[in-house]
Amino acid sequence: MENLMIYLPAALAVLGLLFMVSKASWVNKQDSGDSKMQFISKSIKEGAMAFLQAEYRILLIFVVIAAIALFFVSTLVETTHWIIVVAFVFGAFFSALAGNIGMRIATSANVRTTQAARTSLPQALKVSFSGGTVMGLGVAGLAVLGLSVFFLLFLKMFVTGNGSFYNEMTIALEALAGFSLGAESIALFARVGGGIYTKAADVGADLVGKVEAGIPEDDPRNPATIADNVGDNVGDVAGMGADLFGSYVATVLASMVLGNYIIKDMAEANGGVFTDAFNGMGPILLPIVIAGVGILASIIGTFFVKVSSNDAKENQVQGALNLGNWISIILTIIACFFLIGYMLPEVIQMKFFGEGTKEIPRLNVFYATIVGLAVGGLISAFTEYYTGLGKKPVLDIVRNSSTGAATNIIAGLANGMISTFSSVLLFAAAIWGSYHLAGFYGVAIAASAMMATTAMQLAIDAFGPIADNAGGIAEMSELPKEVRQRTDVLDSVGNTTAAVGKGFAIASAALTALALFAAYVTFTGIDGINIFKADVLAALFIGGMIPVVFSALAMKSVGKAAMDMVNEVRRQFREIPGILEGTGKPEYGKCVDISTKAALREMMLPGAMTIITPIIVGFVMGAEALGAYMAGVAVSGVMWAIFQNNAGGSWDNAKKSFEAGVEINGEMTFKGSDAHKAAVTGDTVGDPFKDTSGPSMNILIKLTCLVGLVIAPILGGHTLSNAKKHKVTETKDKIVRVEQKR
Amino acid sequence: MENLMIYLPAALAVLGLLFMVSKASWVNKQDSGDSKMQFISKSIKEGAMAFLQAEYRILLIFVVIAAIALFFVSTLVETTHWIIVVAFVFGAFFSALAGNIGMRIATSANVRTTQAARTSLPQALKVSFSGGTVMGLGVAGLAVLGLSVFFLLFLKMFVTGNGSFYNEMTIALEALAGFSLGAESIALFARVGGGIYTKAADVGADLVGKVEAGIPEDDPRNPATIADNVGDNVGDVAGMGADLFGSYVATVLASMVLGNYIIKDMAEANGGVFTDAFNGMGPILLPIVIAGVGILASIIGTFFVKVSSNDAKENQVQGALNLGNWISIILTIIACFFLIGYMLPEVIQMKFFGEGTKEIPRLNVFYATIVGLAVGGLISAFTEYYTGLGKKPVLDIVRNSSTGAATNIIAGLANGMISTFSSVLLFAAAIWGSYHLAGFYGVAIAASAMMATTAMQLAIDAFGPIADNAGGIAEMSELPKEVRQRTDVLDSVGNTTAAVGKGFAIASAALTALALFAAYVTFTGIDGINIFKADVLAALFIGGMIPVVFSALAMKSVGKAAMDMVNEVRRQFREIPGILEGTGKPEYGKCVDISTKAALREMMLPGAMTIITPIIVGFVMGAEALGAYMAGVAVSGVMWAIFQNNAGGSWDNAKKSFEAGVEINGEMTFKGSDAHKAAVTGDTVGDPFKDTSGPSMNILIKLTCLVGLVIAPILGGHTLSNAKKHKVTETKDKIVRVEQKR
Repeated sequence: MENLMIYLPAALAVLGLLFMVSKASWVNKQDSGDSKMQFISKSIKEGAMAFLQAEYRILLIFVVIAAIALFFVSTLVETTHWIIVVAFVFGAFFSALAGNIGMRIATSANVRTTQAARTSLPQALKVSFSGGTVMGLGVAGLAVLGLSVFFLLFLKMFVTGNGSFYNEMTIALEALAGFSLGAESIALFARVGGGIYTKAADVGADLVGKVEAGIPEDDPRNPATIADNVGDNVGDVAGMGADLFGSYVATVLASMVLGNYIIKDMAEANGGVFTDAFNGMGPILLPIVIAGVGILASIIGTFFVKVSSNDAKENQVQGALNLGNWISIILTIIACFFLIGYMLPEVIQMKFFGEGTKEIPRLNVFYATIVGLAVGGLISAFTEYYTGLGKKPVLDIVRNSSTGAATNIIAGLANGMISTFSSVLLFAAAIWGSYHLAGFYGVAIAASAMMATTAMQLAIDAFGPIADNAGGIAEMSELPKEVRQRTDVLDSVGNTTAAVGKGFAIASAALTALALFAAYVTFTGIDGINIFKADVLAALFIGGMIPVVFSALAMKSVGKAAMDMVNEVRRQFREIPGILEGTGKPEYGKCVDISTKAALREMMLPGAMTIITPIIVGFVMGAEALGAYMAGVAVSGVMWAIFQNNAGGSWDNAKKSFEAGVEINGEMTFKGSDAHKAAVTGDTVGDPFKDTSGPSMNILIKLTCLVGLVIAPILGGHTLSNAKKHKVTETKDKIVRVEQKR
Repeated sequence: MENLMIYLPAALAVLGLLFMVSKASWVNKQDSGDSKMQFISKSIKEGAMAFLQAEYRILLIFVVIAAIALFFVSTLVETTHWIIVVAFVFGAFFSALAGNIGMRIATSANVRTTQAARTSLPQALKVSFSGGTVMGLGVAGLAVLGLSVFFLLFLKMFVTGNGSFYNEMTIALEALAGFSLGAESIALFARVGGGIYTKAADVGADLVGKVEAGIPEDDPRNPATIADNVGDNVGDVAGMGADLFGSYVATVLASMVLGNYIIKDMAEANGGVFTDAFNGMGPILLPIVIAGVGILASIIGTFFVKVSSNDAKENQVQGALNLGNWISIILTIIACFFLIGYMLPEVIQMKFFGEGTKEIPRLNVFYATIVGLAVGGLISAFTEYYTGLGKKPVLDIVRNSSTGAATNIIAGLANGMISTFSSVLLFAAAIWGSYHLAGFYGVAIAASAMMATTAMQLAIDAFGPIADNAGGIAEMSELPKEVRQRTDVLDSVGNTTAAVGKGFAIASAALTALALFAAYVTFTGIDGINIFKADVLAALFIGGMIPVVFSALAMKSVGKAAMDMVNEVRRQFREIPGILEGTGKPEYGKCVDISTKAALREMMLPGAMTIITPIIVGFVMGAEALGAYMAGVAVSGVMWAIFQNNAGGSWDNAKKSFEAGVEINGEMTFKGSDAHKAAVTGDTVGDPFKDTSGPSMNILIKLTCLVGLVIAPILGGHTLSNAKKHKVTETKDKIVRVEQKR
């Protein structure tokens, strides 16, 4: 039985994928409406697929170059086998595949949701949430499948039982890091490219359509309207999916690396060997088993997401989603309790940096999972407070809109900035708490537990853009008003879940980065990262600057891409006869093409910066400096992610507040007022914040740490020789100490 | 001769103060114009003094509380003598005195500059720059005088020659840290309070006066116009002066602390004693002597600041200022070369963290001073590029104004963010370079060299607001057009020097913080700050968040204070008959009063946060965590300072570009266009950025490190006992190592 545990994650992943296939085929069997609806839906799907294909061509080049570089690395370093290249390619492929599945189902489910909404709200929820579920299970299933199959393969290849288990396992895990690196690289381009695409289309469509031509949003006469709807899928579905796919894989990987470290500590404390019922690798297996069980918990949770009444309001729909989410989480907690009791030794001997070996009861690891789940829940609550409709911060921005755009902007910026307070304190407490419970393994397991219900989180998340698209299709197809009302209920809930999902993504990125950071230090074999050394401190400064410059590049890219779109839409309005009267047919494809090209062109520089800078820092300044660089990127990146997401989210909802009317200084104020116009300005500033640069921070943080982890073995050697050189010049007392150590 | 070196700084400080007195009396002897001009000038002076007096009352309470707390600390810790309380009180008093001198002279020189401008531009420059010189010498003279006199006193008190020189000197320097803490605390309130004051008055005056009532800037009918002019003095003169006073003192102090550390290293490497011709304390004396000589160099430099032609343009005035500045800098470099050759041993044995003792030629220390001066020069050049009229970044914002306020804001934000790139790389290179030259002593000496010409820097800096005020007085007194044109030439140069001065202030804060950080680690006796420990990493996160939240609080404060002002101006327009026709007299004093009260009320929370948070972190999380907290504040604070200052500066100049007209897409665009209105929105957003929250970052960074330094001895004890506790549980090999060390 115990020996079979190693196959459980793969089995659960396959189960998840099978459930996904059945859900997908159910969605595709639903009625896709009349021919006009089908035409619009087809245009969106084609645009989305065109973007993906154009993106794939560029990514292929990237993957080939990176694979060659990786192969080169593998020839240099003893502990890195060339098979890492294969893992890398598969990581990239699986990530792209997960994004592809998500896009396909989202662009099928949108029109079917519209059609379902013609008859009933419960059915519309069912279709859109099923679409989200397919996306969620695709991501989680492929992640666990890829990780577990490669792990099994590398176990066979490297862990012979003849040499040191720890060293052999290190080689296996180093190769597995390639899978994670591949996944995260694709995520980078998907997030950044998708973020630029969606906002370029959105801003371009609005600036010319709404402002210059005076036609409403989602109007079929606007040539950029299809590109705008494609953008929702490219950014919110594929981008978010790739982001969480990357986090999921990286978290589990980091936990496994730290699990291996525990095995080493315990072996050292127990005369050189560690044995348990799981071939002596319970701590390594645990995280991936938790991930597998999380898929099962998520599937069970999805059955509880439904409403029965056709007149259900937002809070009932939100309640249904919450119920499903909580059931998954609670099932995961229960499973974690038993798995930890089953798979870990009762007492773990663990080395704490600078404090020696401590004895940790395994229950501590369970408490760490609770810390992780609490962080996920609390960060979502914080995000909702700072961005939610009717909450104090948003009302404050609304009030400040009455004195013009400038005060609206200042209020939004200040809100985003101040929102870092609670979230950062939460992270600090989580780091501190889970570390004190079970060292960095505790931090990593906290992250793993949080990520275990990724399938459910993504289902809830992806349902939003599907409903949003469904509403757009209803509008463009000129369906009866009640259809739009029903999709609006779903869309409105989707806006909340989107904000909450962004909080979850940041929290996952932060915890994942910490786990990777810990794994990095372990891999390089340096004894800590001491910022009282000047070069290490300098690297911390540089790391802190990168997220700021990255955000600026992303924002500028949106500006440039949007200008391309504006010019194209203006050209069509000018050159196509009868386009504004509805008799001429806009060239939707041209706009889709422009967004695609601009997004792919503009994602290059920030992407290259993310990957190349840590490599330069590592090789020029050494392993310890690279560690500080990582910490700098993480600290600053988390701050800028929270700041930008929450500022953007609150501007958005401040603008939305005017739709229902808000009271400012005792007067009801509506759409079209000067205050509303000021709020629209704020929302436009917030768009790239919340949909491009903000969410990109997650990937920046994780990818930085992953790149570091992959080059860690080379740097480890690098610093070792350095250290030897310096030791020669040391004063007497230190030399004695060094000799003592030998 | 060598023994007399110790008195040289005090003597040079006195010389500087004497020169200041003669300059001040010359300024006061100048003609102060007709009765209308005198009335306006008197109103501004009274408003400024009223603010200072109200501020002093609050600061007195703060100083008393802090003095009691410090006294309590001194009873707890062996190495902290109660005399630190006296030093603290004097530090606070000297800082306030320097601010007072600056405000008095600035509010005398403004109207005299106006009057001088009625006849000649060269004379107007002479008066305004003399005003600036008085301010600069007041700050530098008092700083060096206070430091050197207290140092002499503490030498007598503590360095008996009977015990260990290093330990006795540590007690003396710890007491001296009180002087620095006092100075920096006052600077905090002066900067934050002044920043809130100036922007509340500015925004309040503009929103009601310009926008609602449609009267021009500086119009005497606007009740807030005097408050607005007071604000320029309170913010740009007193705030900036206090900021640099604090940096100056802190830098010299930190260099002295690190000089003491060198003496210890050299004594250890040479059989227990270090002797030189300066009573065995050349490395400690050097920084304060450099500061003293810098005063002399600045005085000489001021003689070269003059123009001869009445038709001189901006670049000639700027050239005159640059000439004076460069002469001071070059004289300082030459002096440093000889002083280092004279005062330091030819070869310095210095311990490098983790690398043992190295032999450093004293010439390396000289190279470090060049690094410091280069940083000062380059950061000013970077600042000018990112904020200067006619430069690419500002033109880019101008172009983006044509599509509305939102794109203007995005462009400005992106510009501020991207400007962190070059500055942070510069800092990183400076840290790395000066450390490799001469350890943290090199870093501190680099900062000292950069700060040596503070008197000159401040003279150039303070001349700007004086000229600005002079222009305002010309406007309000309805003087002939050519007067305003002459003051406008000076004002325009003043805008550039203000931006450059902000860059200098950031660079000085960053280097000062590093030097203090190094001194902190030395004082606590911890062996480095290892961010691979969870609590240390958590503290790094918290530290990174503080500048963001601080900035948000400052921005919100400006908003609240401005609203108070708006309501008051509206009330006066409503209730005072004939006010808008120029027949009713506005109640200027009420507006001054409101700004004063609001600024003082709003500076409390950010001020308290700055001082209390490091104390909490230190006592709850320990010395190492506090070190990481400091690093987090420094890294994040530098980033946010550059971001906010440069974004604000570039928005300001983008708006100004429209005054002369700019070409957008081939069309000349002027004031009053839609693009100009968008640029005005950007400028309003930028106001609190560049004049309140941005400049406050400097103080936040330095004060955080100073608070840490003052509580360092307690924490040192704290961690010592902790360390002992942990060592007991360590595994065998480590215990052996510890015993080996004893």
